[in-house]
Amino acid sequence: MHDTPDTFTFRPIAFVRSPYARRIDAPHQPTVVAGTEAGSAADAIIEFVADFPEAALQDLAGFERIWVLFAFDRSEGWKALVKPPRGGPRRGVLATRSPHRPNAIGLSAVELVAVEERCLRVCGVDLLDGTPILDIKPYVPYADAFPASCAGWIDAVDAAQGRQSAPGPRRPRRFSPVFNRNVDQRETGSE
Amino acid sequence: MHDTPDTFTFRPIAFVRSPYARRIDAPHQPTVVAGTEAGSAADAIIEFVADFPEAALQDLAGFERIWVLFAFDRSEGWKALVKPPRGGPRRGVLATRSPHRPNAIGLSAVELVAVEERCLRVCGVDLLDGTPILDIKPYVPYADAFPASCAGWIDAVDAAQGRQSAPGPRRPRRFSPVFNRNVDQRETGSE
Repeated sequence: MHDTPDTFTFRPIAFVRSPYARRIDAPHQPTVVAGTEAGSAADAIIEFVADFPEAALQDLAGFERIWVLFAFDRSEGWKALVKPPRGGPRRGVLATRSPHRPNAIGLSAVELVAVEERCLRVCGVDLLDGTPILDIKPYVPYADAFPASCAGWIDAVDAAQGRQSAPGPRRPRRFSPVFNRNVDQRETGSE
Repeated sequence: MHDTPDTFTFRPIAFVRSPYARRIDAPHQPTVVAGTEAGSAADAIIEFVADFPEAALQDLAGFERIWVLFAFDRSEGWKALVKPPRGGPRRGVLATRSPHRPNAIGLSAVELVAVEERCLRVCGVDLLDGTPILDIKPYVPYADAFPASCAGWIDAVDAAQGRQSAPGPRRPRRFSPVFNRNVDQRETGSE
């Protein structure tokens, strides 16, 4: 027996430092990078908050990918039907990966490049700079990977337009000068 | 420019009705069912709250799998290191799928069996009866499926003990009479 609370409150454990300052700059899914300036996925850093225990990151090294669960903190409100960036008719919001959802929680499988002191270096990120991270989980193929899984209306659009038709960012950006400076500082550190 | 709130509060959009009444009864991952009584994954129902708009479910039919993001509402507190059910030494909590996490949010890729009136029938569920659902997302292989992704310490344990060594439920249960009755009522409905 237990009482279910009406709401659940979460505190960010980390924040993203990424080259994407605004929504319009970010790819719609992390693996879609054809439209980016470099033609490759951007690096980003997941920086844990000051009081987060370092030991909780132990054993993450060795995982090729991690799940990043984050708050779409710049999303304001939602509607039951949304117009996908791929085009076509409006779709039920739960059948899309739109950031404007009933609970604005995002999910991305990103490559884990390195576990560093109090931060993770990752690649293949569609996250905006400053995005609050709620959870990190290991990517485990037997529980997470279903490569032949049918994807409903998305498969239909892809079949009509060519595979993986999600648009890339419209205004690709380089890393901001501030971001590069911070990365350089890290790289010359003793870590 | 935007201010990042210190916390994020979410309201469940749905609740699970499943045969697993207690944590000890549920498999540790939805695809691990070797230890269950039937040897197959259990059906469950995701029932949306009364004021949730039906249109938001539109276009979900056709997806073979969905992501279920849920609250581990029976989890109390967390530690930086946890002892995995597979055995071996304690691991950093973020390198595990433990329910006892800094933000107690769970993630499962479940099979979508049917979209019905105000609910989803799903299969392959490791969710406890009554679990609050925070979000549903379509499973999209190009963004979500990385079958060859290395899984660090989990690969190492599996290599030593045999593949997919996560233990099944220790006390497998049949569907509870209440659950079956509700399912039967649904099946005789006009939906």
